[in-house]
Amino acid sequence: MRTTSVGVFRIATTGPGDVSGLMDLIGSGAIDPHAILAVLGKTEGNGGVNDFTREYAVAALCTALAPKLDLSPEAVEQRIAFVMSGGSEGVLSPHITVFTRSEVERPAGVSGKRLSIGMAHTRDFLPEELGRSAQIAETARAVQAAMADAGISDPADVHFVQIKCPLLTSDRVAAAHARGNTTATTSSYSSMAYSRGASALGVAVALGEIASNIRDEDVLRRYDLFSKVASTSSGIELMHNVVIVLGNSVSSASEFEIGHAVMGDAIDAAAVTAALESVGLGANPRPGRALVNIFAKAEASPDGSVRGFRHTMLEDTDISSTRHARAAVGGLIAGLAGTGAVYVSGGAEHQGPAGGGPVAVIARLSD
Amino acid sequence: MRTTSVGVFRIATTGPGDVSGLMDLIGSGAIDPHAILAVLGKTEGNGGVNDFTREYAVAALCTALAPKLDLSPEAVEQRIAFVMSGGSEGVLSPHITVFTRSEVERPAGVSGKRLSIGMAHTRDFLPEELGRSAQIAETARAVQAAMADAGISDPADVHFVQIKCPLLTSDRVAAAHARGNTTATTSSYSSMAYSRGASALGVAVALGEIASNIRDEDVLRRYDLFSKVASTSSGIELMHNVVIVLGNSVSSASEFEIGHAVMGDAIDAAAVTAALESVGLGANPRPGRALVNIFAKAEASPDGSVRGFRHTMLEDTDISSTRHARAAVGGLIAGLAGTGAVYVSGGAEHQGPAGGGPVAVIARLSD
Amino acid sequence: MRTTSVGVFRIATTGPGDVSGLMDLIGSGAIDPHAILAVLGKTEGNGGVNDFTREYAVAALCTALAPKLDLSPEAVEQRIAFVMSGGSEGVLSPHITVFTRSEVERPAGVSGKRLSIGMAHTRDFLPEELGRSAQIAETARAVQAAMADAGISDPADVHFVQIKCPLLTSDRVAAAHARGNTTATTSSYSSMAYSRGASALGVAVALGEIASNIRDEDVLRRYDLFSKVASTSSGIELMHNVVIVLGNSVSSASEFEIGHAVMGDAIDAAAVTAALESVGLGANPRPGRALVNIFAKAEASPDGSVRGFRHTMLEDTDISSTRHARAAVGGLIAGLAGTGAVYVSGGAEHQGPAGGGPVAVIARLSD
Amino acid sequence: MRTTSVGVFRIATTGPGDVSGLMDLIGSGAIDPHAILAVLGKTEGNGGVNDFTREYAVAALCTALAPKLDLSPEAVEQRIAFVMSGGSEGVLSPHITVFTRSEVERPAGVSGKRLSIGMAHTRDFLPEELGRSAQIAETARAVQAAMADAGISDPADVHFVQIKCPLLTSDRVAAAHARGNTTATTSSYSSMAYSRGASALGVAVALGEIASNIRDEDVLRRYDLFSKVASTSSGIELMHNVVIVLGNSVSSASEFEIGHAVMGDAIDAAAVTAALESVGLGANPRPGRALVNIFAKAEASPDGSVRGFRHTMLEDTDISSTRHARAAVGGLIAGLAGTGAVYVSGGAEHQGPAGGGPVAVIARLSD
Repeated sequence: MRTTSVGVFRIATTGPGDVSGLMDLIGSGAIDPHAILAVLGKTEGNGGVNDFTREYAVAALCTALAPKLDLSPEAVEQRIAFVMSGGSEGVLSPHITVFTRSEVERPAGVSGKRLSIGMAHTRDFLPEELGRSAQIAETARAVQAAMADAGISDPADVHFVQIKCPLLTSDRVAAAHARGNTTATTSSYSSMAYSRGASALGVAVALGEIASNIRDEDVLRRYDLFSKVASTSSGIELMHNVVIVLGNSVSSASEFEIGHAVMGDAIDAAAVTAALESVGLGANPRPGRALVNIFAKAEASPDGSVRGFRHTMLEDTDISSTRHARAAVGGLIAGLAGTGAVYVSGGAEHQGPAGGGPVAVIARLSD
Repeated sequence: MRTTSVGVFRIATTGPGDVSGLMDLIGSGAIDPHAILAVLGKTEGNGGVNDFTREYAVAALCTALAPKLDLSPEAVEQRIAFVMSGGSEGVLSPHITVFTRSEVERPAGVSGKRLSIGMAHTRDFLPEELGRSAQIAETARAVQAAMADAGISDPADVHFVQIKCPLLTSDRVAAAHARGNTTATTSSYSSMAYSRGASALGVAVALGEIASNIRDEDVLRRYDLFSKVASTSSGIELMHNVVIVLGNSVSSASEFEIGHAVMGDAIDAAAVTAALESVGLGANPRPGRALVNIFAKAEASPDGSVRGFRHTMLEDTDISSTRHARAAVGGLIAGLAGTGAVYVSGGAEHQGPAGGGPVAVIARLSD
Repeated sequence: MRTTSVGVFRIATTGPGDVSGLMDLIGSGAIDPHAILAVLGKTEGNGGVNDFTREYAVAALCTALAPKLDLSPEAVEQRIAFVMSGGSEGVLSPHITVFTRSEVERPAGVSGKRLSIGMAHTRDFLPEELGRSAQIAETARAVQAAMADAGISDPADVHFVQIKCPLLTSDRVAAAHARGNTTATTSSYSSMAYSRGASALGVAVALGEIASNIRDEDVLRRYDLFSKVASTSSGIELMHNVVIVLGNSVSSASEFEIGHAVMGDAIDAAAVTAALESVGLGANPRPGRALVNIFAKAEASPDGSVRGFRHTMLEDTDISSTRHARAAVGGLIAGLAGTGAVYVSGGAEHQGPAGGGPVAVIARLSD
Repeated sequence: MRTTSVGVFRIATTGPGDVSGLMDLIGSGAIDPHAILAVLGKTEGNGGVNDFTREYAVAALCTALAPKLDLSPEAVEQRIAFVMSGGSEGVLSPHITVFTRSEVERPAGVSGKRLSIGMAHTRDFLPEELGRSAQIAETARAVQAAMADAGISDPADVHFVQIKCPLLTSDRVAAAHARGNTTATTSSYSSMAYSRGASALGVAVALGEIASNIRDEDVLRRYDLFSKVASTSSGIELMHNVVIVLGNSVSSASEFEIGHAVMGDAIDAAAVTAALESVGLGANPRPGRALVNIFAKAEASPDGSVRGFRHTMLEDTDISSTRHARAAVGGLIAGLAGTGAVYVSGGAEHQGPAGGGPVAVIARLSD
């Protein structure tokens, strides 16, 4: 019986332009370049508007993969989903996670639901659509397409939905104005939050976590509306949303399993532990289980406090709040996971409750 | 029988100039201003050379306490040890911890060693002495004086030694040069590390953790030399070292107990848990025990990695490594303690092993 | 005949808490503390939301002046207008400018219009009024009151209107929300721009530079509406606007004269030169004329370019655009004036044309 | 008669990865890719250790030029000298300047000395050689080789010597330690200053501006030793020095002329004007003269003041002093030149007097 196999490879990098780890695995035959579906990376920029490490990392990977795939670098960027989350604050360590997918004979002894991955993307957005209902609705459609691609029908089997979404620049705002339209914000930095928020609401709509009648004015205001599995990153390099669904499916025969929990706030150690335990890891791991990576979102609580104590992240003009939040949540997750090579991304608007965020764990099963 | 009573009060602040919480406790009679021995605070500056929140907080406290003590603000600053650690990155929450000491009749039922506090200070240093053997030797002498003041004779009963030490400015470097002398460094920012390091080595010498023949060139190089209980902060506002010893003593009848552990690296969750458990706290706290505060030092591992994965703190020109480290370690400790109102201070040179640092916990006992 | 005398003293500071220069001038009799009307300062913080050097400087000055005025520090802050502009980027040098006013016999030989100063303030604003028409209208009224106080009736004699205005914090936004109202923005940093912008529009209305029917939605959008002499700084420490009018008046017998020009963009060297020449300074100064200080506003051009070349100030997540703009314009003005001890303040929304700003010069006349 | 022709093209960029401007000029035939000798660029990173915009820009240019030159990207990087100076603070505008050189028939009517360019490079350095006499001596040799390559024999005809030099990373410091050697500093950020300083001293030695017996301990200390034409930038991407000499030579028949002056401090407007006037530009330009670009170095005065007034650049832990200095000097030069698209690079150790730096101007002559 034919089935899908999914591979997951976490590869440390020495800089945003470093592709040697991936090339080595391709050279050794461990990774078939044609099977690469998506690459999620942590790069060492500021994670803000002028974080060029993201596009540099993507450019370096595309240039390196082009000859392996007999494609131009531009065609590689169309074929593979690259999501680079800038910002390796504190103990966070730059790395990439490569997801592969291929059709295989179902191995004997594999049963139950295993890690599956699906992808889809929206049309290009106009600048004036970012952070508003158009982005929400289009994203919801793409999430459902990606679930189908992953062979997942039950929303409960979806554990992480990574989305890459656009942001506004001065030029893009000007283009909207030239059409007589206003944008959700004129600030590039603020637009990142709007785009992330609307994209997350699209996930929540698709998975039935919230109703579908979200209004423009709910974005970045109604923080009671959120998805427990959405993770969205905005970048300057695209104008559409790319959606990657990670979940468990009987159609997959991979060696991996994914689970998740939701951090209620930025210091929710119990949720991190629960996520680890959901795939047999944690303080007393099940035999044969090993951590592959953790994927989490972090943000500064918009009400200015964590469990009753004031934080200063939102009032700091020197360091953006997303950098503060990644550093702090990264410190907690790294401590509980025993490694800083984890994917903690900033800006968790409508991704988990206000001040919290989803945390997903992928484990390798050798049992 | 007369004995010493020590009080510990953690008070949240709304800004570096906020003294209202302390004034309220004095107004209500909960704190006798004449009993105040030391104030350790986290303020919301950058923790670097130009962090004026530290001196602003001290100025505000001295001005407010002056009429309560019938002293000038300057005399208050001489009488009470103020140690402000700048930098409330991530979830860290600005607050002060006020330590009081007074002579009382020993209450019935109090037995064993309880929290005790002692203080001393060195002479003023010349700029060219900072970060060198003179600072080490003078600090060691002051630590022994502070132990005696605390009624502690066994170094094993010392759990935290907080030191406030000077740094170099352009003016101070110029003054040394005018005398024909060089300083350990000409960079103000680097001088903070030298001064913290030499002060910590002074603690290690005093407690017998290392031999006393430390050379100038060992400072910031021989990271195998360290104290497990030293915590040192440099500030622009003084030219001598102020030493505060915290430990447990039979001479104290306080309601508090202190314990500590040593973080081996910045993600050492086990050490934080051990420190909590050393005073009956942690996942399964002993009845009647409550957390008062945690005191820890954090730093970017000087070898550029944490458990084999590269960190980027030392190569970041936008954010100083001390801010990164406080944010990450603060996130971990806050997660395990359940609160961001903890004292995590940056720059742990010779304070714990390279990349790690001491973590002390004070618990209140109502049993 | 009795007339008004105005004094202007530029005093270098060694830090935000340094009051020694002013105290020395009071001690020597050069400044009568009772005559001090306003203090404009440049302090060395980041000029953003969490710039505590501004309130620290004000607190230090109030504490030092209190015994000289037989007032409490709080009463000093009510009596004297303190405007601290944070941010001494690049070559800008921290200093204060002290303005005094007193009644004197008109000296023989003084004729023509001389430097005059007037003050007024608005009522406290609600958070929801900031950056909106209420702030504009109240400010316009206060500007007219301050002109009357300065003895100036012709708007052409007004050369600089300095305003200190509030900003939003998380708490203030929450208070508005609790009343069922929204604020112009929920971001503290953005609120500084809204408050500065509305205050500047108030000046323009008062001086007849624009019509009075400004709508909420014009603020930070209709950049063709601006004042050529407004300079507004927002700070966390107040909820009302303080207005200081500087101009020339026949009612004044001061030794000083003020003039101004408008920078059309951030590199408008010709405007700086014109402002210097308007009071007899510049490359070929009139005999007996000396520079006292320059007062200017700077901002990043909101269209993202300066004379056709892209700037990156608005897309920098590491350094706020106000810091960039102060550094650049400060470098230009310091170069043309020959000193970095000039008052260049960031955030010139509706203060001069978009990307530009007013530049005023005070000269001392000994002729 | 055959002679050398040099071309200079200033091209605005929309980001560090933007090569479209250069590709357009190649496509139109305006630039022969085989004639490209060097590219000097301003990119929009922080100019510090973790400024990846420099290597990204170089990678993008090499990838784009490779097919035009029938070379691999790696071979392009060996063939052409790329010097990217990170940091477009304030009004500075990201751009590249492309220098071409080719042999042509000497056009009629061209006489006198015209812009010439020569290149050379040193061997790779060991980490422990950086910032020390080995780097000085090797650089001096390379400068003389580059002068010969430019057809310049008189040091007075050398107006700008651009050098690209290495820096230390944690790995490189560790490698030196493993060999039992110490490095000039263990801080990556500080190492940039050491490498720039030693390279500049190499220029001064080569041009006879100072004697050749410079000692290790003179670097970053003896600021009376400097070159008036050196401009050095350190980057993580190489271990040798690349030297580019720009001057005027009778062997050149180019349309361009270069001149220079030395800024005595960061506000030396007169020097900028003198440099402009040296090639017929400035307030009253000679007919037919047009500005091509200005090349200058900027630094925070190491004594902490500019013309007697304190600056705060060296004590700012939020923004590195090189960013402050580029912003301020960039503002001044842009104001006097009328454009922000100028090459102002930070870190002027031993490049001009302490706190100042060289400023060179290239003009196009159509007369």
